[in-house]
Amino acid sequence: MLSEFELIARYFSRPPAPDSRTALGVGDDCALMTPAPGMQLAISSDMLVCGRHFLPDADPFTLGHKCLAVNLSDLAAMGAQPIAFTLALALPEARADWLEPFSRGMLALADAHGCELIGGDTTKGPLTISITIFGEVPPQQALRRDAARAGDDLWVSGTLGDARLALAAYRQECSLNAEELALAAPRMHAPTPRVALGLALRGIAHAAIDISDGLAGDLGHLLQRSHVGATLDVDALPAGAALQQRDLHLRRRFTLSGGDDYELCFSAPVRQRDAVYKAAQAAGTAVTRVGSIDAAPGLRLLDASGEALQETPDSFDHFRS
Amino acid sequence: MLSEFELIARYFSRPPAPDSRTALGVGDDCALMTPAPGMQLAISSDMLVCGRHFLPDADPFTLGHKCLAVNLSDLAAMGAQPIAFTLALALPEARADWLEPFSRGMLALADAHGCELIGGDTTKGPLTISITIFGEVPPQQALRRDAARAGDDLWVSGTLGDARLALAAYRQECSLNAEELALAAPRMHAPTPRVALGLALRGIAHAAIDISDGLAGDLGHLLQRSHVGATLDVDALPAGAALQQRDLHLRRRFTLSGGDDYELCFSAPVRQRDAVYKAAQAAGTAVTRVGSIDAAPGLRLLDASGEALQETPDSFDHFRS
Repeated sequence: MLSEFELIARYFSRPPAPDSRTALGVGDDCALMTPAPGMQLAISSDMLVCGRHFLPDADPFTLGHKCLAVNLSDLAAMGAQPIAFTLALALPEARADWLEPFSRGMLALADAHGCELIGGDTTKGPLTISITIFGEVPPQQALRRDAARAGDDLWVSGTLGDARLALAAYRQECSLNAEELALAAPRMHAPTPRVALGLALRGIAHAAIDISDGLAGDLGHLLQRSHVGATLDVDALPAGAALQQRDLHLRRRFTLSGGDDYELCFSAPVRQRDAVYKAAQAAGTAVTRVGSIDAAPGLRLLDASGEALQETPDSFDHFRS
Repeated sequence: MLSEFELIARYFSRPPAPDSRTALGVGDDCALMTPAPGMQLAISSDMLVCGRHFLPDADPFTLGHKCLAVNLSDLAAMGAQPIAFTLALALPEARADWLEPFSRGMLALADAHGCELIGGDTTKGPLTISITIFGEVPPQQALRRDAARAGDDLWVSGTLGDARLALAAYRQECSLNAEELALAAPRMHAPTPRVALGLALRGIAHAAIDISDGLAGDLGHLLQRSHVGATLDVDALPAGAALQQRDLHLRRRFTLSGGDDYELCFSAPVRQRDAVYKAAQAAGTAVTRVGSIDAAPGLRLLDASGEALQETPDSFDHFRS
């Protein structure tokens, strides 16, 4: 059995990167970080609980990736450049065959984004992973939720719904063949945070949010904070590769309300359409125009023929479901 | 039953302070904070798990205080000025009669230190409280663990062991009368982070650590990081008001190895003795000189007559006990 200090030393301590902002990392009362002069610090926390956000037998490498990915996604939605994170970890027991792949999955994604693990905490307890992440953004350039304006185009990145489709298969709500599952499962287990797109949209997009609880619910938060409404072309929503092959009802339901997509939903002025496409190309991420921001509050859903849909999207709420 | 968003709005969202560093707080993908120019950011994370760090029936007001206090204590041990924190909270259920006093206890201590709640996460799960705290310290003035030098005096703040004595009473390892319990219990449930002392020791002390797992163990980390040893006058250790009345053996054991004290242990050059006493007076916190830093590694324990003690202090390790 590893001690707390051996565990940290073995799996979570590494020499600082040559271009590190960190004057002092893991192993003191605090980490010390020197923010770049003139930049704002973007800070986000996400907590993942075993049995709620992932299953007890979740592959630890993929889980390590996912825990950091959902935090990176929050920075992406702010247009912030990742710089560092802290990890607080409650574990039932300190098992090397879990910790080794978990830390490897997490640190591989961290390295890919130049995001340094600078501190944290480990304790015995029900498996819980709590990350706080730090990024930098120039003042006035953050993609805030409250910055959408009437007349803006509404966009989403990548595709929606495949993570929810994979979950449906695990819950035996529907069945997927091997090929469909191979397409859908990675979207649930190993989401891709749209960091490059968030950075490329600085100065172009007005408002952004990442889609973690389902597009309709998350877009609702953006609309509420911006004191606006929106009209959404539901059949224009880009369904995931597996979901595309399902019937219209399921496509609508999972693109609108499926959770765990970690795509960006953002608004941008109509005159920036070309700039949005160029930013997306530079970031290597597809984007789709899916509606527009209205002055009137509320979310209006239209089908492909422009008719109003009667379905009400239900957002995923952690204390209601 | 409250929703996640109602819960955050009701208990954890407040208007920003007039002198806030926070451009954007609770309610977006990230909080935005503008660090003071030229300052280093000190960052620490602590996670408290129900059944491990506190009992399920712990008073929520006091628990809210304690969770933030242990994080403030890490800033104190760095000589950092608290500025903000994030809170990630897993709850079995969102009960107002628990959340209301919990948030009140936490935010009262936050206000006392000008430390703003800027974001976080809430989810359903086994009761777990994960805080990441931010403070500021001028470059080169942080009280790092690796800065102790041979010849330094060794100091502790306040008194030691009463938190452990209260725990012993709860565990029925010993019995305390009502008066003793009234002295000891607050040290366990509502520790006082020595923030003012940490700030006052900037430029005076060399190294510092906060005593959370017991003096001997925490001092051991400081010695190891500084590549030095120490000689400790065990009978000079300031026992808590309740522990003072117990026998010598228990006094030694709980002052040396009792956890949850949240006092500071620090080293300072001999020529700074007067400055240390003045800093302590300015901070309103007693300090006691309890030994010295040696070039030779290891921790040597002496009794009141200067004889070597044979007892080996055992530190509290979360994965071993």
